[in-house]
Amino acid sequence: MSIADQPGPDPAYAARAAALLRAAANDLKRNDVSAEADLGLPAGSFADYTSGRLPITWDLVGRATRAWPLNERDLLPIHDDTEHGLRVVRAKESLASSRIIERGGGPYYEYRDTAMSRLASYRPEWIKMLRVVGDNDPDNPSVNWNKGHLLYQFTYFVGPVNYYYRSGDRSFCVPMSTGDSVWGLPFAPHSFTARSATEPAYILALTYGGELTGDAQRELSAFGHAITGSLALTPGDHGAMLRALMAARLVTVPELARRSGLTGERISQLGATPGRAGWDELVALAGALGVSVRELLVPHTTTEHDVRLQPAGAAPTWEHPGPAGPAYRFTQLAGDPLHPHTTSLQVEVLTSRADSPLPPTYQHQYLFVLGDEPLTVHWHHHDEPFAARLEPGDSAYVIPGIELSLSAEARTRLLMLRIAGSTTPEVRFALGAMPAGGLGRYVAEDRLWY
Amino acid sequence: MSIADQPGPDPAYAARAAALLRAAANDLKRNDVSAEADLGLPAGSFADYTSGRLPITWDLVGRATRAWPLNERDLLPIHDDTEHGLRVVRAKESLASSRIIERGGGPYYEYRDTAMSRLASYRPEWIKMLRVVGDNDPDNPSVNWNKGHLLYQFTYFVGPVNYYYRSGDRSFCVPMSTGDSVWGLPFAPHSFTARSATEPAYILALTYGGELTGDAQRELSAFGHAITGSLALTPGDHGAMLRALMAARLVTVPELARRSGLTGERISQLGATPGRAGWDELVALAGALGVSVRELLVPHTTTEHDVRLQPAGAAPTWEHPGPAGPAYRFTQLAGDPLHPHTTSLQVEVLTSRADSPLPPTYQHQYLFVLGDEPLTVHWHHHDEPFAARLEPGDSAYVIPGIELSLSAEARTRLLMLRIAGSTTPEVRFALGAMPAGGLGRYVAEDRLWY
Repeated sequence: MSIADQPGPDPAYAARAAALLRAAANDLKRNDVSAEADLGLPAGSFADYTSGRLPITWDLVGRATRAWPLNERDLLPIHDDTEHGLRVVRAKESLASSRIIERGGGPYYEYRDTAMSRLASYRPEWIKMLRVVGDNDPDNPSVNWNKGHLLYQFTYFVGPVNYYYRSGDRSFCVPMSTGDSVWGLPFAPHSFTARSATEPAYILALTYGGELTGDAQRELSAFGHAITGSLALTPGDHGAMLRALMAARLVTVPELARRSGLTGERISQLGATPGRAGWDELVALAGALGVSVRELLVPHTTTEHDVRLQPAGAAPTWEHPGPAGPAYRFTQLAGDPLHPHTTSLQVEVLTSRADSPLPPTYQHQYLFVLGDEPLTVHWHHHDEPFAARLEPGDSAYVIPGIELSLSAEARTRLLMLRIAGSTTPEVRFALGAMPAGGLGRYVAEDRLWY
Repeated sequence: MSIADQPGPDPAYAARAAALLRAAANDLKRNDVSAEADLGLPAGSFADYTSGRLPITWDLVGRATRAWPLNERDLLPIHDDTEHGLRVVRAKESLASSRIIERGGGPYYEYRDTAMSRLASYRPEWIKMLRVVGDNDPDNPSVNWNKGHLLYQFTYFVGPVNYYYRSGDRSFCVPMSTGDSVWGLPFAPHSFTARSATEPAYILALTYGGELTGDAQRELSAFGHAITGSLALTPGDHGAMLRALMAARLVTVPELARRSGLTGERISQLGATPGRAGWDELVALAGALGVSVRELLVPHTTTEHDVRLQPAGAAPTWEHPGPAGPAYRFTQLAGDPLHPHTTSLQVEVLTSRADSPLPPTYQHQYLFVLGDEPLTVHWHHHDEPFAARLEPGDSAYVIPGIELSLSAEARTRLLMLRIAGSTTPEVRFALGAMPAGGLGRYVAEDRLWY
């Protein structure tokens, strides 16, 4: 058995793969005997695979995918590359990943990878601007644009950096300074340059895939461009959501009128316009459709020309736990209601003691030490305490559900970007609705269903 | 190159895999030269992989997974096993999959697979009850219970079937008849028997994984049981959602009070109780948190003891497109607001002409011909018209975004179960927010990001 014959051989990954095979067979209502018949396996061997005594090989994945209505990825778990829930990348490791990217025949950026994890969709880079400009003209020919990329991009600016972005046929240049930030939509072309050849000018380009990567991309790429386009909804369009739910339930206007007490005319009007219905109307419509009011409300965006700018000077700041004896001072950075589960903060660590825990969050977390002084991260994992010292330029990834405390001998600053993973509110409520004992089997199915 | 060396060799799948490799390299900001260096590939070969000239093999997936912070499944698309968006399974194919499941030392169920697809989480079975009981006692010793399973289960009853379910330490037996239905939560133990040895007694057990399978299961199984448990939210608990968003944003009570205009006391009270805030308060809190009101509202459930029963006699019925000259009569079957995107209907086809299209939906669809007469499904895919005749006992899977028309020479009945895929409302609004040209690259990335 060579490393090429199977996905990652680490024991915890292998155990998750074994549990997934059992879950897949359960879902298809195959017991061991019928699974062995379907997959052409020797009698008695299926239990060896589902218990982890035999490894899940590519050959086995291939057999299951050919015999059953499964995809290869349906049998594959993900890798945990953290240590006790954290993955630290040192400044010198980032430096070792340094590469110069050329644009227009000359050096344009220096890229360095910072903390990424196989558990999250972050692709965070430290990027230094090597092209120096003497103006703020978006049409300056020495500015080389990219074509945009799938990932959302949160950018934190350090030093005299020019930020360029293009929306439709309009191009913009915004001169940025330390502490300014921007949140941008996927596939929006952009560029960065320096306004000074001598001062440090770099960005933290924290890209992430969010809800667009993973299962949704797989599904939509199989449906194709036309169907994907037909499924797009415009942020802020409440009427489109009402129409979608009526179509989903095949409820006609007269039937919805009968059930909700609204007139057919009013229902048609609500479906045809983006505005929100009155609260009482929403309650009546939700009840008539058998959904919660939440489902009739839509997200909106505050982006303009595909980006949301947050100048440092106008950013809200506040103390935690409160103004009296604060342990942290937070500054809110760029974000948008379209991503309600993304939090971007500049954190000033004001305490030298690990006595101000931040509440655990459902989000994944990314940390980068912006300040010139180190800090210490304190956390618990499976009830065991841990601590890690982060030096300037170090970065870290933290899994959800972890209570962190930060401390620093001398005041220092941290960039924090929290994002949603695949555990959406819908998944969280589904977990909460499961009967007792379900959770353990959900994370690691260990038995036949009967 | 043998079939064992690579995931499914079909050309469309291979093209999607090639596009995914390009997208993954883009996300990691690797151009062809650096990708070849990272993966140990010959100069010039990376473009052969991302263009589909060379197949994506297990060896290549392994190299990428070891060199980059990726999981094997991040590079794997899914298979489209439909023909022009539909997959029909004939009654005789279902019959060929027949298998007798024994419980308690004797035959208990006859299972037959019906239409499944690699594109959706359905695992729908036709199941005949082989155990006959003479009473409606949930403690009848000839009833053999299962342990419950991960999948949600919508069940449609035909004939004198007893339905048993257990919640906590309480067991229930409900005598069911044709047209009754039930929707049940994952991991709820249940069983079925027949009340007659002579009358047909079977169910359509339409299980599906929904939001719980796929990426979310992978993520949570890596985090483990304790963290998964800490992320569970109780349906109907609005206070928990407010607390979650405050923790996510690290906003303190005094800071949220300052921004929203609510008192700190009121905010603490709202966070500590399940009740919903007033609408004006929700608008103020959402604005202060930088989210849409939608995010502060939670789903609720109408299940009792983990199930929602829908007796046929009490089920709403209505005509489509309207009471004058209807083409279809719908009867609403069991469902729950916890799954707002699940629709279960009994459809009577009243028209012999394909002139009453049902509006396209974002949902996946499953169809089973309940009636004794055939029907014809008419649809378009990529602007081409198609039709398929479905005989009694035939079943079909339909991808999202398809406009269907149904016609039948003689009136007949169809069971329809529509479920959400991975394309959640959040994904749909993200698609709608993408700049022009983004959608095509999202479904099939075909270029470097610069």
